[in-house]
Amino acid sequence: MKIALLGCGVVGSGVRAIIDAKESRNTAALEIKKILVKDENEIDDPRRTTDFNEIVNDPEIELVAEMMGGLEPAHSYVKAALEAGKHVITSNKKMLASFYPELAAAAAANNRCLAYEASTGGGIPWIANLGRVAREENIESFSGIMNGTTNYILSRMTSEGKDFAELLAEAQKLGYAEADPTDDIDGYDVRYKCCISAVRAFNTYVSPEEIPAYGIRNIGMQDMEYCKKNGLVCKLIGHGALVKNADGSKAIDIGVVPSFIPADSMMAGISLNFNALQCVSHNLGAATFVGQGAGSLPTAHAVVQDMIDVMLAEEERAEEVRTLPVSTESLHNFYIRPSKLTAFGALVTKTVGSGAFIASGISFARLKEIVEQANDNNVFIAEIL
Amino acid sequence: MKIALLGCGVVGSGVRAIIDAKESRNTAALEIKKILVKDENEIDDPRRTTDFNEIVNDPEIELVAEMMGGLEPAHSYVKAALEAGKHVITSNKKMLASFYPELAAAAAANNRCLAYEASTGGGIPWIANLGRVAREENIESFSGIMNGTTNYILSRMTSEGKDFAELLAEAQKLGYAEADPTDDIDGYDVRYKCCISAVRAFNTYVSPEEIPAYGIRNIGMQDMEYCKKNGLVCKLIGHGALVKNADGSKAIDIGVVPSFIPADSMMAGISLNFNALQCVSHNLGAATFVGQGAGSLPTAHAVVQDMIDVMLAEEERAEEVRTLPVSTESLHNFYIRPSKLTAFGALVTKTVGSGAFIASGISFARLKEIVEQANDNNVFIAEIL
Repeated sequence: MKIALLGCGVVGSGVRAIIDAKESRNTAALEIKKILVKDENEIDDPRRTTDFNEIVNDPEIELVAEMMGGLEPAHSYVKAALEAGKHVITSNKKMLASFYPELAAAAAANNRCLAYEASTGGGIPWIANLGRVAREENIESFSGIMNGTTNYILSRMTSEGKDFAELLAEAQKLGYAEADPTDDIDGYDVRYKCCISAVRAFNTYVSPEEIPAYGIRNIGMQDMEYCKKNGLVCKLIGHGALVKNADGSKAIDIGVVPSFIPADSMMAGISLNFNALQCVSHNLGAATFVGQGAGSLPTAHAVVQDMIDVMLAEEERAEEVRTLPVSTESLHNFYIRPSKLTAFGALVTKTVGSGAFIASGISFARLKEIVEQANDNNVFIAEIL
Repeated sequence: MKIALLGCGVVGSGVRAIIDAKESRNTAALEIKKILVKDENEIDDPRRTTDFNEIVNDPEIELVAEMMGGLEPAHSYVKAALEAGKHVITSNKKMLASFYPELAAAAAANNRCLAYEASTGGGIPWIANLGRVAREENIESFSGIMNGTTNYILSRMTSEGKDFAELLAEAQKLGYAEADPTDDIDGYDVRYKCCISAVRAFNTYVSPEEIPAYGIRNIGMQDMEYCKKNGLVCKLIGHGALVKNADGSKAIDIGVVPSFIPADSMMAGISLNFNALQCVSHNLGAATFVGQGAGSLPTAHAVVQDMIDVMLAEEERAEEVRTLPVSTESLHNFYIRPSKLTAFGALVTKTVGSGAFIASGISFARLKEIVEQANDNNVFIAEIL
């Protein structure tokens, strides 16, 4: 099968290496015909081009893998490729989460695959396994550690007792965190991944902006001390659940929030830049998938898995998705440390020192409302699991 | 697709419940026509029969799921079903590991599927995921916690400081351990699972008897104290690796052995009756799959996944497997506590108190030789990872 790569950066260069190595019968059956680059000097490869039209107008190219990142032109290229009758694979979580309904509709209208294993959980076969469970029974919920940068910082805060700012600077120096770390540390990266996981797990789309996200920007040593004293560790968790309201209607309970979990639990042992994703269903129970959530070859491995699925015609076509409201009835327990207690008074169940308090039995929707009203840039919020 | 179940015990009754519930489009497309039971009174179901001929001679039945356990008549029935042109699914690890080459040949000769997701790791989609990695790149090694009974006992020895005999008796009372616990505590159960994992990961068969297995029968409180003092916990680990000998020839490094691992590692957090299985390959790196390693519905979920694969014609046919020798060149480090040091003198790198010593840099093959010569029924052996 002749294919084209859009982008030859971290992920794209990994895909090129795996396919060109021809290690398995399946990778040997894939042939890269064109590689779209921004600049002729980017790579020394006779297959490079800077003109997307050479790809979209080439009838021999059956599949396009988009690994450019960013919203545009990635979104326009993916849409044009689907409309030209090509299968599309993307590792671009931000673009996919932002435009999923439109792109899924384009894929369905043209009877082509839109596959996105690499977009969530890097190399971990999360999307494929969610799909396998969902084809047999209803998935009830998913949750996990979906961001390597924050997990790296939190792991080292726990093990070395260093503070957030110092470790963020170190992570930036080592290339584990971006110069502008907002997407990672404020939970937006995980928000995209929750959006995509909900599509596959529940066949339901919630736009990223609707998903509450609290990051670790404001985490302090006093929060880590609270954890240590109580046998807990802090992890940034993204989660989603299909829930029933009291009136029988369905809703999605979904959010991104630092969470305090028992120090001897498996999730507590997910260290440094690993990711762990769990789904829960009635028959299977809890199944967890752990691996490298980022990196060139692991993520490229996931892109190539999608290619093999498409080639073997195993990949299910995108289905029409439904939308559901974010739940106001699913209740959670939070640890909150605001700048001033007064703005959060209504939530306080019990104070726990260092200006922090426990808020028991409130929904993400209600939390979101109060946090927005309080407008406190220094608040630190964690769920207690 | 019309199917038959052989056996309606723990796993079979779970499969019956999942299929009869018709929760998904795929389970609704499966229809149980016959259920083989030992005794008419075993279940109240019009589809029951005590006569295997009613199944094997029924041309409408396209697939047979064997969940009887034991070697015979399970083995004869599976072989007869394949020869009658039916697809076969089995959850029976002992039978499958013992007869794999013969049954795979029968499946190939009749162009039928032989699928066995439930045989290893219970509900965990281990076999499917090993297959997915192997279709893209070579798998280098696998390892994991594959036995819930021993993990339950070891977890509670660590957390509660109780001794082995007491916890084994409790596990037996709760139904977590059999009246004759040999298969679990001496590592034979894990040996079958290593054999089956090696088939899928490396397309290589090693007979169970060839795989070194050391269990936890002789573990003592002094061993747990060694772990605690050194920040370790003990888990029963099965593992396999495709290795190269010095002369360039290939071999399998494979074994079952209690292993001391860092207390803050993910594997240390796999508690009670959960299983965790990891595979390592060049591109993907380490990918770990965690879930319920036993139990009616989780294991039945795995059987039904195989059924859906066969129905959707996604399951690859069994391939002809090769055989490889067990490695004598892959070196490991062991903690050994014999009754008398003298019989093991040649191995001692360093003594560590309580009559235990560390043996560094020896192969499983060499260890097996010395353990057999020493003939010490009370020796406790652990690998140090």
